[in-house]
Amino acid sequence: MTKRLIACCDLGGTKMLAGLVSSQGELLAVEKYLINGRGSPQAVLDDLDAVLRRMLASIGRKYDDLAALGFSSTGVLNIETGIVAMNHNIGWVNVPLRDMAAQRFGLPVILEMDANAAALGEYWKGAARGISAFALVIVGTGIGSGLMLDKRIWHGAHSVAGEIGHTVILPGGPLCGCGKHGCLEALASGLAISRRAEAALKLGRTSVLQVSDQAISGQQVVEAARAGDELARSILEESGFYLGVGLANLITLLDPQVIVIGGGLGVGAFDLLEAPMKRAVQQHLNYWAARSTPIIPSALGEYAGLYGAARAALDAVSQSILSEVTK
Amino acid sequence: MTKRLIACCDLGGTKMLAGLVSSQGELLAVEKYLINGRGSPQAVLDDLDAVLRRMLASIGRKYDDLAALGFSSTGVLNIETGIVAMNHNIGWVNVPLRDMAAQRFGLPVILEMDANAAALGEYWKGAARGISAFALVIVGTGIGSGLMLDKRIWHGAHSVAGEIGHTVILPGGPLCGCGKHGCLEALASGLAISRRAEAALKLGRTSVLQVSDQAISGQQVVEAARAGDELARSILEESGFYLGVGLANLITLLDPQVIVIGGGLGVGAFDLLEAPMKRAVQQHLNYWAARSTPIIPSALGEYAGLYGAARAALDAVSQSILSEVTK
Repeated sequence: MTKRLIACCDLGGTKMLAGLVSSQGELLAVEKYLINGRGSPQAVLDDLDAVLRRMLASIGRKYDDLAALGFSSTGVLNIETGIVAMNHNIGWVNVPLRDMAAQRFGLPVILEMDANAAALGEYWKGAARGISAFALVIVGTGIGSGLMLDKRIWHGAHSVAGEIGHTVILPGGPLCGCGKHGCLEALASGLAISRRAEAALKLGRTSVLQVSDQAISGQQVVEAARAGDELARSILEESGFYLGVGLANLITLLDPQVIVIGGGLGVGAFDLLEAPMKRAVQQHLNYWAARSTPIIPSALGEYAGLYGAARAALDAVSQSILSEVTK
Repeated sequence: MTKRLIACCDLGGTKMLAGLVSSQGELLAVEKYLINGRGSPQAVLDDLDAVLRRMLASIGRKYDDLAALGFSSTGVLNIETGIVAMNHNIGWVNVPLRDMAAQRFGLPVILEMDANAAALGEYWKGAARGISAFALVIVGTGIGSGLMLDKRIWHGAHSVAGEIGHTVILPGGPLCGCGKHGCLEALASGLAISRRAEAALKLGRTSVLQVSDQAISGQQVVEAARAGDELARSILEESGFYLGVGLANLITLLDPQVIVIGGGLGVGAFDLLEAPMKRAVQQHLNYWAARSTPIIPSALGEYAGLYGAARAALDAVSQSILSEVTK
C-alpha cells in the first residue's frame, strides 16, 4: 500500500484540479484546468484520464500504481450513492459520477462534498492537523462548511450537513441564491460583496470601483479595499461582521476547538475580514461560551479538497482491506 | 449489575426531581420537591439523602442496592471536573457537586447538563429511541438543546455545545438575559413570551391577560391563547416563527434525523406552536436541505433528565467495569 498512489480530483463549477498523492499524503503532482466546454460527464472523465496519465508520466509512475480515486465535488451530492444530483454550472443533473468513474478507471472511487473534503484535507495535512473537532468554513462565491466532529466528518442523516451559508441570520434580509432571505451567504459571500458594491455605486457612492457591463467581482472589491477605497473597506467590514455572527452561532451550537477559514475570499482577504469578523464573534457569544476558539486561515488553500479527496479514498481502500483481512 | 439500582437527580433552579431507575431503564420511584430555602450544597445533598432513603424503603430496597448516582443539572457546568460553575437561582458558584456527592454517598457520581441528560433520556426511553442523530430542543423559561450525534451526546471541545437558545437569529433584536441581542431565547422562550405580552398590554392591546404586580407567565399566555385570546395567539405565533428559524438553522447545519421538542412550554404548548414553527422551518430551509426532518414532542416530559442522568451514570459504571475486566 505504501508505494501506491491515490488519484484525486476536485470538481468545481468551471475548473478542475487533479492530483496524485502518496499514501503518506505528499502531493506529488497537480494540474489545474478548465472543464471542457461541453462539460458532459464523459468529457470530464476523458480529460481526467488524460491528465492522470500525463501526471503519472511526469513522476515516472504507471497507471497500475493507482490504488484509488477520490473526488471532491461542488454542487448537491448524494455521497452514499455517489451521485452528483446537481452541478448548475456544467448542467449536471443526477450524474452517477462515482460508478461511471469506477467503470472508466477500474479503480475504487469515492465521492465527497467539496467542503467536507477540504476539512478532511486540513485535518490530514493542513491547519487542523490532529484537531479532532473543528469546522472548516469556506468563504468564496458562496459559503459552506465541513464539520469535523470527533475525528470524523459529520455528514448528517441525509448527507447534507454543514450548510452554514444557508443558516438564516437576518430573517427577511437580502435574497439568497437559494431562494431564501437573510442567509449568511447572502450577507457575507463573494457574491454578496459584489452585489453590495454594485448597489452602492448605483446610488452614487464615490469609489475607485466603477459600474460597467461586467459584474464587479469580490476580488475587485478586495483590491480596492487594499488600495484604501472607503466604500470597498466598508463593504468588507460588513461582510466580516455577518461572517462573525454566523461563526458565533456555530461556536455556540457546536463548541469546536478551532475554526479554519478557507475559500478564495476567506483566505485571500483574511487580513481584511479578520478584525470585524473576530469582533462580531466576541459580540455574539455568551460569557460562558468558548470565547477563545481560534479562527485561523486554511493552510492548504485551493488544494485542501484534493488532499481531502485523496484521504477519503485512502480511508475507504484501507477499510476494505481491513474488512477483507478480518473476514 | 442487573439487580442494582441507579439513583438519579435533576437539579433545577428551584425544584429537584429525584428517582430510582433499574438498569433496564424502569423508573421505579420518583419524588419532586422544592430546593431547601438555604440551597447550600450541603443542604441539597442532605435532602437528597433523605429522599433517596425514603424512595428505597417505598420499593423495599436497601441503600446498598445503589450502584451509582447521576446528576442532571441546570446552570453552567464543567462536566469534566464535575463542578457546577454557576446556578443563579440558588446562588452556587464553583460547587464541586460530583466529588461532594461521591464522598457523601460513597457512590460513583456523574454530572451532566440538563439538556444533554434529557436528550440521553429520550434516546434511551423516550421519543428518540434508537435514533442515532437528533437534537432535543428544550423550550421553557429559557431555550437549550442536547445534541445526539452518532449515538453519543456531543459535548463540544469545552463541554458547552448545544446552546441553541443563544444563537443569534436577529442581530440587534431584543435583549437576551445573556447580555446579547437577538438570541433565539430572547425571541421564543417563555420569558420572551411573557415580556412580549406585558409590552403589548402596556401599549393598550385588548386581551384577557391583565397587567398586575406579578409578571405574566408564559403559561398564562398559553391558557389565554387556548381560550381564543387574539393577542396571546399572535404572541405564540411569533414565538413559533422564531423557533422555526432556529430549528431550520440547526437542520441546515447538522442535518439530524429528528428534532424532539421538550420543556414545559415546548411540550405544554406544542399544539399551539407546531403550525407556525413548522411553517417557518420550511420557509428557512433550502430545497436541497432535509426538508422532511420530523419535529416531535418529548415523550418523557419533565422526567427526561432523570432517565438521562441515570443512563449517563449507568454508562460510566459499565465502562469502568469493562475497563477493569479488560485490564
